[in-house]
Amino acid sequence: MTSITRIKENHLMSQVVRYDHFIETAGQVCADTSLDIQGQTHQVLAQIDQLLSQVGASKQDLTRVQIWLADIDDFAEMNVAYEAWLANCPKPVRACVGSDLVSGGYLIEVQAFAYIK
Amino acid sequence: MTSITRIKENHLMSQVVRYDHFIETAGQVCADTSLDIQGQTHQVLAQIDQLLSQVGASKQDLTRVQIWLADIDDFAEMNVAYEAWLANCPKPVRACVGSDLVSGGYLIEVQAFAYIK
Amino acid sequence: MTSITRIKENHLMSQVVRYDHFIETAGQVCADTSLDIQGQTHQVLAQIDQLLSQVGASKQDLTRVQIWLADIDDFAEMNVAYEAWLANCPKPVRACVGSDLVSGGYLIEVQAFAYIK
Repeated sequence: MTSITRIKENHLMSQVVRYDHFIETAGQVCADTSLDIQGQTHQVLAQIDQLLSQVGASKQDLTRVQIWLADIDDFAEMNVAYEAWLANCPKPVRACVGSDLVSGGYLIEVQAFAYIK
Repeated sequence: MTSITRIKENHLMSQVVRYDHFIETAGQVCADTSLDIQGQTHQVLAQIDQLLSQVGASKQDLTRVQIWLADIDDFAEMNVAYEAWLANCPKPVRACVGSDLVSGGYLIEVQAFAYIK
Repeated sequence: MTSITRIKENHLMSQVVRYDHFIETAGQVCADTSLDIQGQTHQVLAQIDQLLSQVGASKQDLTRVQIWLADIDDFAEMNVAYEAWLANCPKPVRACVGSDLVSGGYLIEVQAFAYIK
């Protein structure tokens, strides 16, 4: 028997899960691929805020963030949007690498992990 | 003192660990590199089923799945096998990116995380 | 209210977090990019030892290690340093893929996860 809460579940995945004090999102990408890296980063992080709120958490509760960039040269520009997002928060650990993303238009994918108690 | 159970441990890694309610597998690849992406995906997911069973869990208990594809263009074909695998299960969160895998013959690597209580 | 301990926190991230029994490091890279893959691996793993010690843990407590190589062909050489590091330890699960790293000089990035009870 499971004790895992799953939100926005479709045939392939849930968008966020919570079990006990633990929360994990799916990798988030930006549907509007006309946006530049700062715009896509801003949008993806807003999606994470929304998902966290659906399981009773917020960015204050983040433990870890995983970032994939389609082009690692977007690192500095991504950081501008990322730093603004966490301006008033304690900072989670982070890893960021360059990888091929599912659609050619996606510039960034982000996965977030939180802990609430 | 540790309270981590380690299964199929060699000089480099364990294939699955369990600690309290938490389970994590090593990145699984398919030894038979003659298989196409659907075949390798099917085999890798069967290996994960087997590893989960060795620590008292099943795919019903998955919280998160990480997928790396050697060629991101295999995404749609991989999904066919992935969706079939989880047909009757609640869905974990997921992230999938394209990355270089250790052997040129590996088309997919998958890591699974589960929670049982 | 948070119950997450954060170490070496700057404007972008913490270098290690601990919450209850759980520990996660940021992705560690080697500042001295003149070192070869064995040298960078050795240095990065030493940084992880140091971070773990700051939250009351050691490599004996590792559950999982994530490795990214700038050049997947460095896999065998990386393993020499990695195996030496864990020679007298129980082995965590592991995944290793090739990805673009933030600086052209970084050959390896490693993220470690531990559990202490």
